Amino acid sequence: MAYSVLGKSVPRVDAVAKVTGKAKYTDDLAGNNMLIGKVLRSPYAHALIKNIDVSKAKALPGVEAVLSYQNIPHIPFATAGHPYSLDPNHQDKADRLMLTDKARFVGDAVAAVVAQDELIAAQALQLIDVEYEVLEPIFSPEEAMREEAPLIHEDTPHNILSTFGYQIGDVEEAFSTSNFVFEGDYETSIVQHCHLENQTSFAYVDGEDRLVIVTSTQIPHIVRRIVGQALGIPWGRIRVIKPYVGGGFGNKQDVTIEPLNAAMTLAVGGRPVKIEYSREEAMLDTRTRHAFKYHLKTGISKEGKIEAIHISAISNTGAYASHGHSIASSGGGKFRFLYTPKSIKYEPVTVYTNLPVAGAMRGYGTPQIFFAFESHLDDIARKLQIDPLEIRQKNFVNIGWTDPISKNRVLSCGIRECLTKGQELIHWDEKRVRYQNQTGDKRRGLGLACFSYQSGTYPVNVELAGARLILNQDGSVQLQIGATEIGQGSDTVFAQMVAEVLSIPVREVHVLTTQDTDISPFDPGSFASRQTYVTGMAVQKAAEEVKAKLLDFVWGMTDIPVQALELIDQNVVYKDSGEVVLPLREVALQTYYDPNFAKPITSDTSNNARVNAMSYGVTFAEVEVDIKTGQINVLEIYNVHDSGKIINPLLAEGQVEGGVSMGIGYALSEQLLFDQKTGKILNNNLLDYKLPTILDTPKIGVGFVETEDPTGPFGAKSLGEPPVITPAPAIRNAVLAATGVAFNRLPLNPQRVFEKFRECGLLS
Amino acid sequence: MAYSVLGKSVPRVDAVAKVTGKAKYTDDLAGNNMLIGKVLRSPYAHALIKNIDVSKAKALPGVEAVLSYQNIPHIPFATAGHPYSLDPNHQDKADRLMLTDKARFVGDAVAAVVAQDELIAAQALQLIDVEYEVLEPIFSPEEAMREEAPLIHEDTPHNILSTFGYQIGDVEEAFSTSNFVFEGDYETSIVQHCHLENQTSFAYVDGEDRLVIVTSTQIPHIVRRIVGQALGIPWGRIRVIKPYVGGGFGNKQDVTIEPLNAAMTLAVGGRPVKIEYSREEAMLDTRTRHAFKYHLKTGISKEGKIEAIHISAISNTGAYASHGHSIASSGGGKFRFLYTPKSIKYEPVTVYTNLPVAGAMRGYGTPQIFFAFESHLDDIARKLQIDPLEIRQKNFVNIGWTDPISKNRVLSCGIRECLTKGQELIHWDEKRVRYQNQTGDKRRGLGLACFSYQSGTYPVNVELAGARLILNQDGSVQLQIGATEIGQGSDTVFAQMVAEVLSIPVREVHVLTTQDTDISPFDPGSFASRQTYVTGMAVQKAAEEVKAKLLDFVWGMTDIPVQALELIDQNVVYKDSGEVVLPLREVALQTYYDPNFAKPITSDTSNNARVNAMSYGVTFAEVEVDIKTGQINVLEIYNVHDSGKIINPLLAEGQVEGGVSMGIGYALSEQLLFDQKTGKILNNNLLDYKLPTILDTPKIGVGFVETEDPTGPFGAKSLGEPPVITPAPAIRNAVLAATGVAFNRLPLNPQRVFEKFRECGLLS
Repeated sequence: MAYSVLGKSVPRVDAVAKVTGKAKYTDDLAGNNMLIGKVLRSPYAHALIKNIDVSKAKALPGVEAVLSYQNIPHIPFATAGHPYSLDPNHQDKADRLMLTDKARFVGDAVAAVVAQDELIAAQALQLIDVEYEVLEPIFSPEEAMREEAPLIHEDTPHNILSTFGYQIGDVEEAFSTSNFVFEGDYETSIVQHCHLENQTSFAYVDGEDRLVIVTSTQIPHIVRRIVGQALGIPWGRIRVIKPYVGGGFGNKQDVTIEPLNAAMTLAVGGRPVKIEYSREEAMLDTRTRHAFKYHLKTGISKEGKIEAIHISAISNTGAYASHGHSIASSGGGKFRFLYTPKSIKYEPVTVYTNLPVAGAMRGYGTPQIFFAFESHLDDIARKLQIDPLEIRQKNFVNIGWTDPISKNRVLSCGIRECLTKGQELIHWDEKRVRYQNQTGDKRRGLGLACFSYQSGTYPVNVELAGARLILNQDGSVQLQIGATEIGQGSDTVFAQMVAEVLSIPVREVHVLTTQDTDISPFDPGSFASRQTYVTGMAVQKAAEEVKAKLLDFVWGMTDIPVQALELIDQNVVYKDSGEVVLPLREVALQTYYDPNFAKPITSDTSNNARVNAMSYGVTFAEVEVDIKTGQINVLEIYNVHDSGKIINPLLAEGQVEGGVSMGIGYALSEQLLFDQKTGKILNNNLLDYKLPTILDTPKIGVGFVETEDPTGPFGAKSLGEPPVITPAPAIRNAVLAATGVAFNRLPLNPQRVFEKFRECGLLS
Repeated sequence: MAYSVLGKSVPRVDAVAKVTGKAKYTDDLAGNNMLIGKVLRSPYAHALIKNIDVSKAKALPGVEAVLSYQNIPHIPFATAGHPYSLDPNHQDKADRLMLTDKARFVGDAVAAVVAQDELIAAQALQLIDVEYEVLEPIFSPEEAMREEAPLIHEDTPHNILSTFGYQIGDVEEAFSTSNFVFEGDYETSIVQHCHLENQTSFAYVDGEDRLVIVTSTQIPHIVRRIVGQALGIPWGRIRVIKPYVGGGFGNKQDVTIEPLNAAMTLAVGGRPVKIEYSREEAMLDTRTRHAFKYHLKTGISKEGKIEAIHISAISNTGAYASHGHSIASSGGGKFRFLYTPKSIKYEPVTVYTNLPVAGAMRGYGTPQIFFAFESHLDDIARKLQIDPLEIRQKNFVNIGWTDPISKNRVLSCGIRECLTKGQELIHWDEKRVRYQNQTGDKRRGLGLACFSYQSGTYPVNVELAGARLILNQDGSVQLQIGATEIGQGSDTVFAQMVAEVLSIPVREVHVLTTQDTDISPFDPGSFASRQTYVTGMAVQKAAEEVKAKLLDFVWGMTDIPVQALELIDQNVVYKDSGEVVLPLREVALQTYYDPNFAKPITSDTSNNARVNAMSYGVTFAEVEVDIKTGQINVLEIYNVHDSGKIINPLLAEGQVEGGVSMGIGYALSEQLLFDQKTGKILNNNLLDYKLPTILDTPKIGVGFVETEDPTGPFGAKSLGEPPVITPAPAIRNAVLAATGVAFNRLPLNPQRVFEKFRECGLLS
């Protein structure tokens, strides 16, 4: 379909605000005179709190309040940023207190102070005496599941949070009839989001005696609910405001500091109190990406068809549930849409340990499972001496396939074209030949990995989205959405959608980037790569409604029936000839000031998306491995995506580049490290935690295969998370191709690579 | 009709915010580091500006910009806060520039500076050299209309802004057949609103390159339009935000500082600039109430029926049009609904002079015309020796009367009952007898005066109002309106309306008191006593829509048809038995989270009120006059109103008390004084301008006669302005009754009373 604004790389609607500093983030709005809230953290990974003596801290001048489980609400609540479910069995596990009476990881929040400034708050923390009874800590899921292991949560036998998997077909039977059966073990590491803006919020009680929380979040409406649940107050008495946000990557799809911040302001008579996490706190006590261990078993026919997959997965969710049960389940669910073997069995187990809490992070379980399976598949191809490209081509899903569990149906799929495009971009065939049988100190290789992903969470959650549109007197519009711009560019994409439907310039669409639960249309927020697809439906609907009302109004003004009218370039025109009937501005003005028929045109709409579209893609990587140092150099890397219609190519490229960069870090350098005895985090700062810098990042190649999904707004599908999924297995597979060494554990950092090369005899 | 919340004196929804200081006014939001804008004012009442040399001012360190007509847009614009009209003939006169090239009163804005602080700004003003060519100034309308008078605006012959009056029937014929014909001259003074919060605004350019203006206004949507017109930029590129407002009384129904504030920020690259008027500036260069001179001629039948009224009126609108033409016209229009004589001729002339600009002020022309006519009527009654009460009773309008000009129809009228109630409250009959034939130094007397008023401006303007309502998950709601709370209590009244329809406590209605043109439903603002009546209709409509959607949703949930359902006390119940079907909260939750039917319930509605309801009322006053000092002491004063259904009696009483207090000031002490030679204002401060203090104010008696107007929401009619209309003539008539001396000029301050007593021989 021909579009005028969609598919164009219009500048971000927030570009100027962001580069000029006019964009106001939470801390910018906080002012300088707020009270400061700070958290006292447990030095023990596992300990009962026998007593807390806050008397010295309270006596320090400038201390306004000292909080512990003894004097704030003690209502267990769940923190995961999921839409609420009316089904109690579908609700997240409520295992968290604002301040705990049992420390479950080094850094668990035990007490808090509110003081007049940062320094006094920090001093006061040191004056709190906590009496601990230290318990045996557990850091690995395997330990945690032992019969005799201490329970981290009393109500959770064997420390097993969840085992929710699935089975399609009979894998055992399929294995017995497969020509080949392969097995392998794969393991991912704990990493952290490292968004630019740390968790920051401030809270106060307003003149109506309602709690107001301004916070850097992806999910303001969910924050409202969870604060209400944690404090035991009706949700309507809470107002959550989300200013500009400096990145989230899923970590702000969780409610971390807001309930405690609310309790803090209530403790000081409603005066404003700010919590601003340091980088160290943000890396310790927000969320991480779950480390998974997989055992894979795959049956293959002699034609190269995957007959059966059996996946056993162990997920380390750390001290509290957060998204844990859901991530293990979701990763397995999204995985199903790529190869669709006859039979598949997924057996995840999500286990509590005394480590920091794992939660949502870009990819939501898929970087882990696709690392495992796409590595495994290359191992299989290698053994079968098939081109890794070919084994995938033989097994890709076909359009029309319906998932037997979710009933979601593949209505568009460009994975084959993605593969071909990536193959060409990296010169796969030519280089594969060139890089055979290398023996030097520096060896090159190519790898690839594919993925499938979803657009939103249907049918797991209710996928509601809201949009409100107001037509101004000059023909421009304001757009309000409940979904949050957190850097991903959704506000711009929504503006393009509105501009397209109404045939006005993007600059005439004024997007309200601040979400405010009192006034923003309801939308659970930004997560699950749902904005363009799910919220986009609501935006499209609102724009179509405004257009329909507008043309109907013109019918009233002109007696030209609505079916003969169209909007083109800020004019109402005859649909057939394009002849101008009335300028849009004139109509818009009339809607406000016609003596009899004045009625400003607005739409305040909601959409409940009961569909889901699959996105697909592939990463191709070329690496050079330095055998002597273990250094892996990514020479070229291409991500090719089928995300349906690309609304804004430049923004889409930006998404891909960011995701690939995160994927490279995940592959080669990033991991949170813990002292094996104490569980103390060792590298929760940006010096010791090895994010790839710009110097570590090659030029990232981006390609799109544009399908048009019939369920998506303008054919669009998800793109936010997919780019991060497959760089790690593609790089790992390229290293395998270059060296013959299979790395089955992330990250492939020089130390680990070097050691393995020595183990394998590549180094003498 | 029986209501549960309507008619109850629930506390103001903003009470706590205001008494605790949590309510944020414009200046509270401005912060301390904004640039400061200040205005250079003409020292001459009438002068051409030949040249402006800003070089010295610009050179002063800390000065960021110096503005004059030479470097900012030079587009004449109108400032009156009227809804825009598509009919050019109905638009307000565009005679104003942001900074003028011709000074038309002492204080006219000639140049402006933007500087880093107040002191530098003030210094810089002194460094601007303006070369004036002084012209002959004119201060009275009579002078201004002379053939040879200089023109204040070149395009306005005889300096006559407008002569828009009306005629019903043939007055000359009616005079010729009347048994008695009386004539009289009456004159009112220039007064000022004296709202607590002076004009304050700040403006900046946001990251989307749009102009944002935060301002203390009654009319944010109109400010948006007028700033757009003054600066020549599309309205949609302007965003106006109205925080809490500390009073307006009509003065903030005019656009004063905002266009210049906008020009200031544009002159400094969009940095925030604040203008905060001092009291002296606010009293000089905002708006005043028009001084009128009336010549009245009235024909009366021997039965005491008014046969004909001929009103000639001269209105002094000062240097610019503002609301001038409209106020003369509107005062005459509202007057027609009280006595409805067979014939009436209204001949107003509104004239420019070189005095500060007159504009909208509480009563909008009616305090003037009712002072004249109600004084005149007492003069007539005295001459005919009829009880002033009786002559009015004989002439009151009847229900069903349709105004031949506006076609507005009187559908409810409680004036007779008001009169009777006031008569009893003040013990009219008893005291009238007691106070006959007094001769001492202190003499007492009773007076009364009646009025009619409208509810909004229909059919003069399009009476659009908007309301948006959102049902939360806990059954509470947010209410957004475009009409502005400026202290009058409208937010509380709207909350009561919503609470009534939805049968929830007022505390569950969260009213967004901030208007923001980007998100608030469109409503031209607060003026013309229109909020309860006109905006109330939109609020009622929104609440009814939410109720209908809610019950329909319950039908879906329960299979109980909607006609069998009702909302009572936060429950959905069987309409007949009251038996609870579902708690409201449960339904509300389901609207958000039902897997299939989730759709949050909202209403975003607009109402175009093409009706108008007449309010009526009377003031009764008892005074004691000190013949020797000219001091008038108001002993008792009662205002009795027919404002239809009273939504909140305590708030309504507050409105009446405030209005009566303003009316007493108007009667006895307030007037702006000018040097007769130079036109320089003499008392633009609260020391020299004699507002009545609490010690000058007697206990104010308030009575209501509750009619139910079929057009009003819940039967309500206007109440905001009416209380100020008749205290002055009632007091004047009481003085007449006490002393036999007719004061036909306001105010009746001791000096003037003393002089007149001497003139009349009461003092030797």
